[in-house]
Amino acid sequence: MNVGIIGLGYWGPNLVRNFLANSDIHSLYGCDMNPARLKFIESKFPSVKLTTKMDELLLNKEIDIIVIATPVQYHYEIAKKALENDKHIWVEKPFTSMSSQAEELIQIAEKRKLTIFVDHTFIYTGAVRKIKELVDKKVLGDVIYFDSVRVNLGLFQHDVNVIWDLACHDLSIMDYLLNNKVVALTANGIANYYEHENIAHLALYFENNCFAHFHVNWTSPVKIRRVLIGGKNKMLLWDDMLPTEKIKVYDAGVEVDSPELVHKILVQYRTGDMHSPKINDTEALALGVKEFLSSINENRRPLTNAYDGLKVVKILEAADLSIKGKGKLIEINGF
Amino acid sequence: MNVGIIGLGYWGPNLVRNFLANSDIHSLYGCDMNPARLKFIESKFPSVKLTTKMDELLLNKEIDIIVIATPVQYHYEIAKKALENDKHIWVEKPFTSMSSQAEELIQIAEKRKLTIFVDHTFIYTGAVRKIKELVDKKVLGDVIYFDSVRVNLGLFQHDVNVIWDLACHDLSIMDYLLNNKVVALTANGIANYYEHENIAHLALYFENNCFAHFHVNWTSPVKIRRVLIGGKNKMLLWDDMLPTEKIKVYDAGVEVDSPELVHKILVQYRTGDMHSPKINDTEALALGVKEFLSSINENRRPLTNAYDGLKVVKILEAADLSIKGKGKLIEINGF
Amino acid sequence: MNVGIIGLGYWGPNLVRNFLANSDIHSLYGCDMNPARLKFIESKFPSVKLTTKMDELLLNKEIDIIVIATPVQYHYEIAKKALENDKHIWVEKPFTSMSSQAEELIQIAEKRKLTIFVDHTFIYTGAVRKIKELVDKKVLGDVIYFDSVRVNLGLFQHDVNVIWDLACHDLSIMDYLLNNKVVALTANGIANYYEHENIAHLALYFENNCFAHFHVNWTSPVKIRRVLIGGKNKMLLWDDMLPTEKIKVYDAGVEVDSPELVHKILVQYRTGDMHSPKINDTEALALGVKEFLSSINENRRPLTNAYDGLKVVKILEAADLSIKGKGKLIEINGF
Amino acid sequence: MNVGIIGLGYWGPNLVRNFLANSDIHSLYGCDMNPARLKFIESKFPSVKLTTKMDELLLNKEIDIIVIATPVQYHYEIAKKALENDKHIWVEKPFTSMSSQAEELIQIAEKRKLTIFVDHTFIYTGAVRKIKELVDKKVLGDVIYFDSVRVNLGLFQHDVNVIWDLACHDLSIMDYLLNNKVVALTANGIANYYEHENIAHLALYFENNCFAHFHVNWTSPVKIRRVLIGGKNKMLLWDDMLPTEKIKVYDAGVEVDSPELVHKILVQYRTGDMHSPKINDTEALALGVKEFLSSINENRRPLTNAYDGLKVVKILEAADLSIKGKGKLIEINGF
Repeated sequence: MNVGIIGLGYWGPNLVRNFLANSDIHSLYGCDMNPARLKFIESKFPSVKLTTKMDELLLNKEIDIIVIATPVQYHYEIAKKALENDKHIWVEKPFTSMSSQAEELIQIAEKRKLTIFVDHTFIYTGAVRKIKELVDKKVLGDVIYFDSVRVNLGLFQHDVNVIWDLACHDLSIMDYLLNNKVVALTANGIANYYEHENIAHLALYFENNCFAHFHVNWTSPVKIRRVLIGGKNKMLLWDDMLPTEKIKVYDAGVEVDSPELVHKILVQYRTGDMHSPKINDTEALALGVKEFLSSINENRRPLTNAYDGLKVVKILEAADLSIKGKGKLIEINGF
Repeated sequence: MNVGIIGLGYWGPNLVRNFLANSDIHSLYGCDMNPARLKFIESKFPSVKLTTKMDELLLNKEIDIIVIATPVQYHYEIAKKALENDKHIWVEKPFTSMSSQAEELIQIAEKRKLTIFVDHTFIYTGAVRKIKELVDKKVLGDVIYFDSVRVNLGLFQHDVNVIWDLACHDLSIMDYLLNNKVVALTANGIANYYEHENIAHLALYFENNCFAHFHVNWTSPVKIRRVLIGGKNKMLLWDDMLPTEKIKVYDAGVEVDSPELVHKILVQYRTGDMHSPKINDTEALALGVKEFLSSINENRRPLTNAYDGLKVVKILEAADLSIKGKGKLIEINGF
Repeated sequence: MNVGIIGLGYWGPNLVRNFLANSDIHSLYGCDMNPARLKFIESKFPSVKLTTKMDELLLNKEIDIIVIATPVQYHYEIAKKALENDKHIWVEKPFTSMSSQAEELIQIAEKRKLTIFVDHTFIYTGAVRKIKELVDKKVLGDVIYFDSVRVNLGLFQHDVNVIWDLACHDLSIMDYLLNNKVVALTANGIANYYEHENIAHLALYFENNCFAHFHVNWTSPVKIRRVLIGGKNKMLLWDDMLPTEKIKVYDAGVEVDSPELVHKILVQYRTGDMHSPKINDTEALALGVKEFLSSINENRRPLTNAYDGLKVVKILEAADLSIKGKGKLIEINGF
Repeated sequence: MNVGIIGLGYWGPNLVRNFLANSDIHSLYGCDMNPARLKFIESKFPSVKLTTKMDELLLNKEIDIIVIATPVQYHYEIAKKALENDKHIWVEKPFTSMSSQAEELIQIAEKRKLTIFVDHTFIYTGAVRKIKELVDKKVLGDVIYFDSVRVNLGLFQHDVNVIWDLACHDLSIMDYLLNNKVVALTANGIANYYEHENIAHLALYFENNCFAHFHVNWTSPVKIRRVLIGGKNKMLLWDDMLPTEKIKVYDAGVEVDSPELVHKILVQYRTGDMHSPKINDTEALALGVKEFLSSINENRRPLTNAYDGLKVVKILEAADLSIKGKGKLIEINGF
């Protein structure tokens, strides 16, 4: 298959490198409006055919796949044209700026039997796959909370706030790991420097008695990437900043001796051993590329597909509504 | 002065030890309904005069000060009777169960020229005093956010939720450190085991463009005690779980070259040295006792007085209202 | 039984508290030449009978046990007199200043059927007991190295160097955990401030191909307490400065495919899961007191007996010889 | 200038990348006996001219500089031929297998006015340059000890022991930072798997009362890279495994009130603030290449020259002698 990548900014070289390394890929085309980026890619990857004109890729009959790595505001337009020219598409996160755009793209793709892959990269990391395995094997028991912190001194995005930029990752991770149904959401935050929030907190309520919280911040002096998952049996901490022992499973919890007696505090604590499983360190993006190509060949939805992308965009839209209303409760339907 | 301590549970021995160690204290009386606790205190501190009957302290003319360390639901009643018997009072946090009770106690105390001390212990720690010094000296510059996390596998309280138990500390710390005025609040959380929330998130909006967030959890497998304060000049991290280097001041921040150009992302990051000041390690409770006794002698309000206690109770009341409404925005007046 | 404690300095209050708490102890006597220490002990433990005259304890027929917590230079003399007055003895570490003294005390005690307990406290900690369990169960496999670091900004001792003060702990721990036989030793270090070394490194060679190293330092700005034990199957890290997860067992190692091919580097690395077992947190000193009293009642040697104390003193003597010779190899016989 | 790199193994791609990126370099030639490595380099860097025959580089008149990145046993032979063909040379660490070889190469280079650069890469890291600045500015005061730990589950070298592989780095760092003169050395260690030691400890004695220790281990389950430098004024910790705050300067030390009274323990501890300076994160290898090329152009010795390489080889030779004699003291002359 031949691939054309549109947008060769920060993430571009990683996409080029991983598509080039996959033996199913024959030729690779690249496009960016900035000649400096093209020159940079050329110096690193001389085999890539480069252009500043998007249509040279979108209309090229040799190209089977279009990878869209532009700012999110351009995703819909490019994706639509790519699908209409019968290309399978890979779209960087978040899928689109609006859920209605995502829905339209899904319809077009389904009609034309094309594949949409949304690059929720973290789903392909060894850490998330290991946690998924533990959750599915019921090692944690019923999950009662999901708590995520993703803060650092980060690059402000000029078109979206910190939730769209950072929480987007954690929402896709949560959605992949849990089987619980979101019913409502509230978001709070602050915009200290310009119109978009640089700090935000997102709370999700689920159908069963489960709760999730997401804390994101572009203005933290320290970098934190931590997810805490509370299960009835065990609890899990994922600290992505650690070089090793990223996942720790604690044999810890709370035991209620007799439900009706809780008000008498017959709550007991349980602490035990901690176990840190080894994690596969294959590059997530390489696995993502492999899954995308397999899903095309096998004519099936990829693990991170347009519906997953749509779900995340719906939550992001609701978060924007809520944060403008200072934590206004937004009900979520359709999950 | 002679002191009577009512309630000799978990915190009791610390109160006894610190009051005994202060040279201004002549005799110490103790009361608890549980004879086992009295026996325990007797074995450790044989000089304390012990009883199971509260009135033997409240009505004792020899006693100048009543220390109230019972569950919060009994604070108001005992405090009122103590004041009416012309005792100065020391009340554990939170001050009262309702703000109206706090207001009534303030009136009684002012009429009778008695002192009320609310034990917001953290205000007397070396760490908080050092941070206060840095904030007051404008080392951080204008504070734009205050973010606190206090989670662990903790003792469920049978009469209050995790906000009243844990966030109470951080609210008193925030109120002491910042001069910003709270205008509104939202709270979210979940009750997984009984009627009261075991996990909660509290967001505070201030008059100027500042924001605070408090994350508390009784069901975390790991213990975290972290406060992050973002200033326009510098940023500060206080990690109370570290044995040394608890406070780190980062010469880090965000520089906006020209406000009107922000949407063009002329935001620059600044990172520089980190400085960790030495912290005084005098026991906070000893300093609290000293401040209380000095304030009585000098006929002035103590550093942590009834108005501070009232402010915190008002926020806790608002948080309860908000959490029942799943993040309903509650406006705060009167600060 | 009645107990007399001689030497009520830094460690004294812990000894008093733990002997008082043991139900087999009837009366407790204490002695220190410094009246200020007696006053301090009296204020904390009013039931203890105190004196500045050692003989009031050593010659007192009511007393069954003498606890010796003086500087090491006085251990031998006091211990000898106590044994000659038919007392069982508890001696703080290191047992004696010279191995000949230890041997003489052993002879006296055996003749008079008295018990000598040497307070190698760490042997009774939850961490060391858990490691012993893992070593004995062959979880680690054959141990190939033992590496210990114990450094901090510490109190200089005026009569001994840092090896006698700090490495003494780790030598007793190593001797307890390993069954390997020491055959030789070398020590290096430096004395920057006065005649005794403030930094030292001790290397031990064993009969089978095992090696141990001890790094001690009174002049380190950071406090480190770490032991690394390399086994053929698994490897263990004990970090005593951590509040939790002090012990980590790594499924890591080196596999040599075929011994005769090693020079062709068919050495493979193995890394796997990490497991951190829960540790019992009963106070070590309480368990030490219990073991001492049980050993007297059961007429058997305690877990940390005079022979263990003698072994450590012999190594310390050899270390002194070696360090004076700048790492001169000293052969160790008789283990 | 044109450069030929001989040896394109593990470190090869980094050398190619950094020489290519330097604007003073016109053409780059590469050589490796293993065709697979050539193919790998070609795929990454298509502009490099590749060959399996060393002489095509050594005898090529177009080439000004030969970079030697083979196993150490081949350094001398290749370096000699390169110098005899009038090339400047860059040699990976350690410089040579024997000090006599290093001395011979120095003579040849000096006669022919050629430059020898020894790649003690760490000297060009931001961390080491910052520490050098602090030492030179007397921030630490007189240095009394240098303590280094470099352990991990590492690649066994088939021709040298762990000292030649790992301590080599720390010896070059120590030599760069301190101005003290080494007078003697002892080394201890163990070979658990084949003829060469996998664990070793190296102690260095200096002319003035300073001491250095190096701990290296290829069989540690955890990776540690820590240097502790004790000064009379301040103390410094460099933890190279941390992503940020790698260097910490402690205002901590020991004060001796009056030298003649030390035996009375008038030693006082001093603890104060900690400061962590920002570190330049330019890639060390880029700076090394720049220094090498500048030194050729300016006709001067580079910062890491043949004499530095010789010094380290002499210490490594002495360490081998000592370790075979189980810590035998080896005097070091000529520094």
